[in-house]
Amino acid sequence: MHALDPALVPVLPRTATADGGHLSIGGCDVVALAEEFGTPLYVFDEEELRGNCRDYREAFASRYANSAVVYASKAYLAIWIAALMEEEGLGLDVVSGGELAVARRAGFPMDRILFHGNNKSEQELREALGGEGIGRNVIDNFHELAMLERIAGELGVTQRVLVRVSPNVDPHTHVKTTTGVLDTKFGFSLEARAISDGGTEANASDGESARAISDGGTEANASDGDSARATVDGGPEANASDGDSSQAEEAVRQVMASPHLELMGLHCHLGSPIYGLEPHALANDVMIAFAREMRDRHGLELREYSPGGGFAMQYVRDQPAPSPDDYAEAVVGSLRQALEREGLPEPRLTVEPGRSIVARAGVALYTVGARKEMPGVRTYVSVDGGMADNIRPAMYGARYEALVANRVGDAPEERVTVAGKYCESGDVLLRDIELPRLEAGDLLALPGSGAYCLSMASNYNHAPRPAAVLVRDGEARLVRRRETYEDMMRADVWEE
Amino acid sequence: MHALDPALVPVLPRTATADGGHLSIGGCDVVALAEEFGTPLYVFDEEELRGNCRDYREAFASRYANSAVVYASKAYLAIWIAALMEEEGLGLDVVSGGELAVARRAGFPMDRILFHGNNKSEQELREALGGEGIGRNVIDNFHELAMLERIAGELGVTQRVLVRVSPNVDPHTHVKTTTGVLDTKFGFSLEARAISDGGTEANASDGESARAISDGGTEANASDGDSARATVDGGPEANASDGDSSQAEEAVRQVMASPHLELMGLHCHLGSPIYGLEPHALANDVMIAFAREMRDRHGLELREYSPGGGFAMQYVRDQPAPSPDDYAEAVVGSLRQALEREGLPEPRLTVEPGRSIVARAGVALYTVGARKEMPGVRTYVSVDGGMADNIRPAMYGARYEALVANRVGDAPEERVTVAGKYCESGDVLLRDIELPRLEAGDLLALPGSGAYCLSMASNYNHAPRPAAVLVRDGEARLVRRRETYEDMMRADVWEE
Repeated sequence: MHALDPALVPVLPRTATADGGHLSIGGCDVVALAEEFGTPLYVFDEEELRGNCRDYREAFASRYANSAVVYASKAYLAIWIAALMEEEGLGLDVVSGGELAVARRAGFPMDRILFHGNNKSEQELREALGGEGIGRNVIDNFHELAMLERIAGELGVTQRVLVRVSPNVDPHTHVKTTTGVLDTKFGFSLEARAISDGGTEANASDGESARAISDGGTEANASDGDSARATVDGGPEANASDGDSSQAEEAVRQVMASPHLELMGLHCHLGSPIYGLEPHALANDVMIAFAREMRDRHGLELREYSPGGGFAMQYVRDQPAPSPDDYAEAVVGSLRQALEREGLPEPRLTVEPGRSIVARAGVALYTVGARKEMPGVRTYVSVDGGMADNIRPAMYGARYEALVANRVGDAPEERVTVAGKYCESGDVLLRDIELPRLEAGDLLALPGSGAYCLSMASNYNHAPRPAAVLVRDGEARLVRRRETYEDMMRADVWEE
Repeated sequence: MHALDPALVPVLPRTATADGGHLSIGGCDVVALAEEFGTPLYVFDEEELRGNCRDYREAFASRYANSAVVYASKAYLAIWIAALMEEEGLGLDVVSGGELAVARRAGFPMDRILFHGNNKSEQELREALGGEGIGRNVIDNFHELAMLERIAGELGVTQRVLVRVSPNVDPHTHVKTTTGVLDTKFGFSLEARAISDGGTEANASDGESARAISDGGTEANASDGDSARATVDGGPEANASDGDSSQAEEAVRQVMASPHLELMGLHCHLGSPIYGLEPHALANDVMIAFAREMRDRHGLELREYSPGGGFAMQYVRDQPAPSPDDYAEAVVGSLRQALEREGLPEPRLTVEPGRSIVARAGVALYTVGARKEMPGVRTYVSVDGGMADNIRPAMYGARYEALVANRVGDAPEERVTVAGKYCESGDVLLRDIELPRLEAGDLLALPGSGAYCLSMASNYNHAPRPAAVLVRDGEARLVRRRETYEDMMRADVWEE
């Protein structure tokens, strides 16, 4: 019996099958791929990747015609991915000059690019505005606002922008990836007050209150949503006088007053991954209430709006993630309600999935090496990759499933901890997972490895970063070659 | 008044001064370095680096003539560092084929190289044994032992080896970097029993007992040390019969029986950084007791012994680290006591400092950008680097000190959190640190950045990895050029 464990189907790419006891992706036997390209190897399923793009586009477009899906590049970007996103009609959200350079190399249409970041450099902004300029710059702070205005003026261009607001909604994800709460480096605060020089002054009473939701579950909770809205209403609108306006209001005012910036709308982002739907609804409530206030006070026309991304991916059997339809239903439904409540027309809606598009499309393949059995304590099985190519378990305590790719369908026999090969005890990929007995030479597959693995990969221990192949219809195409020892010495300046 | 804060002197390189309000290292004004080479920039002080090498060599050699100091490359390796270590008479501990390749490129003498790692690949072992082979291979597990024996046989060489033992001593460092306890992927266990096929069988009663010390303080604690030794003595020697031998004993037996391997001695390593001295003494007790048992049962001649490294570095003002002399005194003293107690002659002693040699020699320079003030909550100041070049704060909660390098001596005015520029809330370099008021364009210096920063650096967010300069006597030499956008696309396989 070689069928895939049904519990693993949601974490594997949609083309995954078990053929002759081997895991197959995109019609390619991954055991053969490992032999041809070596391990560690990242296998990307083109059908899964394109399918996720289409699923997101259709989920939103079918509910809200004036919408766009923008791929959050930081999850994983390479030239081939930018090209694929272009073909699928997505936009691209970049967070650095480096990501922008990849997009340009792929010939990605610049007008579909959003530029994010809490500390863009002057050089990066010049790269973004120069030549064929980017579609939208998402302004994060006053420093950037002033710099952007100056550069746009110097270049004689008018840059379209969104203002990023920190809505102070707790998404109940990992504290390291939570971005939309009050205490975050990202975005203009709705609570803290602006002062005349673009800085801020104290607003202690609001400062301490955070809009928490009752739990991090996956179900919407209308009663909490209402009480949170009440908190909002007592917030930013309380004082309309200039010296007392919030940082977010001050940013809107400054952008609207700039001759070189065109304010298209507002942006927020809560963090990632967010398994619940309620935080998105809550953020919409806060943001649209703020937009209406800005209309009333400053004449803001909310032409565009983005609640960001952070949509989750199912990594393990016991933590399912909402589907694109689930997210679209929650985001669009709550947005429409908020717009109606505030009496605003429908803006163009942009969402920014990254992880939820690329994570499931990628499967990492490792070869098993050493075993260390300590009965009553633990059995360690080591593979030929680890924290240098996937830092998520060590960094966030992230969990994964695993399959023995050359013996799919074999029953679990033992509980093991799968360690990487790097000289650090924290280099553990899978802790206490039930697997068939692993022997040296076995091929271990980690599903859900498409996002935040290669993008965060290092050369720790002078390990060459892995190769990647794109598979489809039985064909495998090398899209990233394995690094060489030479590559790792390339930046060394050395004369004998 | 431009003097350095005395509390920061222990965390800065020994050549650091405050000249005209600017931080100076190796006679170079770091503000000028930042202007010439850009930021983020890693500045390495050659005098500090060489001084630390000499301090360690002298600290050990003056107490124990037959000793060697081996630099643990994983802390940070580049061609220039390998060359410098060669000049200073140190050996090199490498953990991968990549690190070995750097050593070869630098012309490092192969006989001074130790090869570590819990899952060396066949290819890496072939690289290590081929041509001018390495000095010592540190065997970590049975898989490696069998592979090494086979390869040495095929190549017709006799490889000198150490057997790495896991002494089950808790060094009270971060759980992610603790390597010498029972539950670790590294080394042969003293507790778990070997079975006939090289695997293990249950020994539940010993399996659960860990040799803990009373606290993680920096002082030796003789009474605890004694009680721990008592635990040790009741351990491995209890049963001498073959089927009941520990994995470590079985490894010794197998290596001694191999015609292609020459057992030079034993190795252990507890983790890093270890601020206390007692764990090292405790490990010596365990290891030398084991060596004596192996002599009695198998005729092991302990010609060489290494208690590893893991020596700490002072990162922050309130957590001092022992000096090389302190470590040498503790290691040598306890080793001699243990040898005397067990009646063994003095083996060659090898220690493996990495962090404690290179960390303090490196200072990272960042340029300040955006500020975000939320009175009553937090003020964020963002710099142009962060988790991509230094993942330690995000990964381990590591703490650092910081100086405003262009205004050294200015009094602290505010408590801020220094964030990086990467799109992740966990990208924070310094949490709640008292500093002068930082403005865009200020230059922030992070001392103690020489180890585990560039070595673990990634291209997350497609950030080019920083440049590095080596400074000495007022001269700065570029030793690592800043990566380019092209560098980051080099491994992409792409045809338009």
